[in-house]
Amino acid sequence: MTKYKNGEIWNFEREARGDISKNGGLILGVDGGATSTVCVCLPLILLSSDSNLPDPLPIISRAIGGCSNHNSVGEAAARDTLEQVIAEALLKSGSTRDDVRAICLGVSGVNEPRDQERVLNWLRHTFPSIVKLYVHNDAIAALASGTMGKLHGCVLIAGTGSISYGFKEGKEVRAGGGGPVLGDWGSGYGIAAQALTAVMRAHDGRGPWTMLTTSILQTLGLSSPDELIGWTYADPSWARIAALVPVVVSCAEAGDEIANKILVEAVEELAACVKTVVQRLHLGGEDGRCSFPIVMVGGVLQANKTWDIGKEVMNCICQSYPGAYPIKPKVEPAVGAALLARNLLAKESEGKS
Amino acid sequence: MTKYKNGEIWNFEREARGDISKNGGLILGVDGGATSTVCVCLPLILLSSDSNLPDPLPIISRAIGGCSNHNSVGEAAARDTLEQVIAEALLKSGSTRDDVRAICLGVSGVNEPRDQERVLNWLRHTFPSIVKLYVHNDAIAALASGTMGKLHGCVLIAGTGSISYGFKEGKEVRAGGGGPVLGDWGSGYGIAAQALTAVMRAHDGRGPWTMLTTSILQTLGLSSPDELIGWTYADPSWARIAALVPVVVSCAEAGDEIANKILVEAVEELAACVKTVVQRLHLGGEDGRCSFPIVMVGGVLQANKTWDIGKEVMNCICQSYPGAYPIKPKVEPAVGAALLARNLLAKESEGKS
Repeated sequence: MTKYKNGEIWNFEREARGDISKNGGLILGVDGGATSTVCVCLPLILLSSDSNLPDPLPIISRAIGGCSNHNSVGEAAARDTLEQVIAEALLKSGSTRDDVRAICLGVSGVNEPRDQERVLNWLRHTFPSIVKLYVHNDAIAALASGTMGKLHGCVLIAGTGSISYGFKEGKEVRAGGGGPVLGDWGSGYGIAAQALTAVMRAHDGRGPWTMLTTSILQTLGLSSPDELIGWTYADPSWARIAALVPVVVSCAEAGDEIANKILVEAVEELAACVKTVVQRLHLGGEDGRCSFPIVMVGGVLQANKTWDIGKEVMNCICQSYPGAYPIKPKVEPAVGAALLARNLLAKESEGKS
Repeated sequence: MTKYKNGEIWNFEREARGDISKNGGLILGVDGGATSTVCVCLPLILLSSDSNLPDPLPIISRAIGGCSNHNSVGEAAARDTLEQVIAEALLKSGSTRDDVRAICLGVSGVNEPRDQERVLNWLRHTFPSIVKLYVHNDAIAALASGTMGKLHGCVLIAGTGSISYGFKEGKEVRAGGGGPVLGDWGSGYGIAAQALTAVMRAHDGRGPWTMLTTSILQTLGLSSPDELIGWTYADPSWARIAALVPVVVSCAEAGDEIANKILVEAVEELAACVKTVVQRLHLGGEDGRCSFPIVMVGGVLQANKTWDIGKEVMNCICQSYPGAYPIKPKVEPAVGAALLARNLLAKESEGKS
């Protein structure tokens, strides 16, 4: 058997067919978010042509798990989640770790070299030394899902959290992504927390009446804003708060001024995140008019009936950078991570040859 | 032995002298906060005169424990903390639960009847049925510590969290107190989170340079704002974030505009909390010029060298209500709770006679 780390979770490898190994091996892509973690397996041989990727992409297997952001669930749980989704994806593909050529992980909460090192160290003990390992923030997987593996342009993620990342000629820059405490305004959590705050302020007399009160209480099955305090702190999950965004959008669409103001401010914050990244990387060129993609990812940026946060953010960005164009990815971020792994692997091979 | 709940923690009662019982019994006051919980025992007999309380007050014993806000540490831990401080205070006093006449608990996180009922239910199983039990939000203990047990006027607490409570002729009104997610702006947590956010915004280019960056990184022993994300989420304690307030005050005193703006906004928020309570209770009378006390409690309102948040809040309130006067309590909130227990007990006795 293998010499690397081999817990019970990898027992399936004893019976795996391993025929993929003979066909050029696998590429794994992982998208680790604050809500869920996805791993996909793709066959390297079918991705070898640089220009023409097969459509649809030949995804051999896919596995999904819980949160892998260590800031949200702790290091041990984050690591277990990552190991489980990778093992499950391999199990479903009928392959073993020996069949893997490269893995790219985009993990939410990877913010500094120390975070990256921790994940890399664990992977080095879990996978054979021949496997190429790439660990980044999950924003990179999201960008790659829009650009089909190319690291050029900007990505804006607004789901439970929010972050903007930009890449140009090997240089990367980020803005936001600090989580609820550190000013992720415009994120799903930020929008919902502002709405909950508006309800409390209306209730105790500090703020004006808002339709948000009845809408949110009804959604949560509560009878008084006083009960919101207990509800809020009963479960520390950020995603649970962020799930209230559709209620805020509905109220804004129904004409509620407070809800509308919260969304307008969210749009300004998200656009500011992108614009600061674009400016620092000169993605718009000398005159700011060059063309570059902005990959738009996350529930907050999905179109709602009338109030379309993603569209408003793009309008705001295009006032400063008319060459910016939005991309809504056709593949999921985990696939973007896999395509990035393939590109990075190809670049390393070129370097050697 | 007693018929009521009797875990190991109460074993000391078998050897307690019980001589206080013969002298009129004890009054217990508990102040349960998000950072610590304090219980004090006072002899009822020495507090019987309505007008002249002994000075200093005859505090027989005092015990201190951790957090008892169930929203912060969970129900089981909150309850254990309360039981431990009460048992320890009784142990130190050489008395048993049979010696207690009344207990008043002011507990942070008690926001609705259900919270109150939960604490009362537990106390009813722990104490003999003859003991009078009063459970309120910790703001009431703080008010009573300034008014020596009288429920009239307003209290503003700004420590880790912030809340304003007002009382007039049996009616009570509150504003704020929703905790970090629900807009406790002006609290220690709120001020520090704003400062941390300003550091992140300056770092990624969204906001202007601020002295807060070097001051906060130095205080925390970090080398880059990127490391702040890991630091922030490594420990979910609200008090740990709030402990950065003195750094913000120092920066404001040294002329940093961003730090100054954060404190100015905190003052406005805290004053708005008080003013909405005063207005709803008509504490200022018809013309708003009547005299009433504002009890000022918590680390944020303590005087700092030049920048005095508490003084600025009072200035702001007095522009609308010139009759408002500040009280800085001479006794701690737990003693306020004990004095309130004594007043409520006396009122019940009057009602019966």
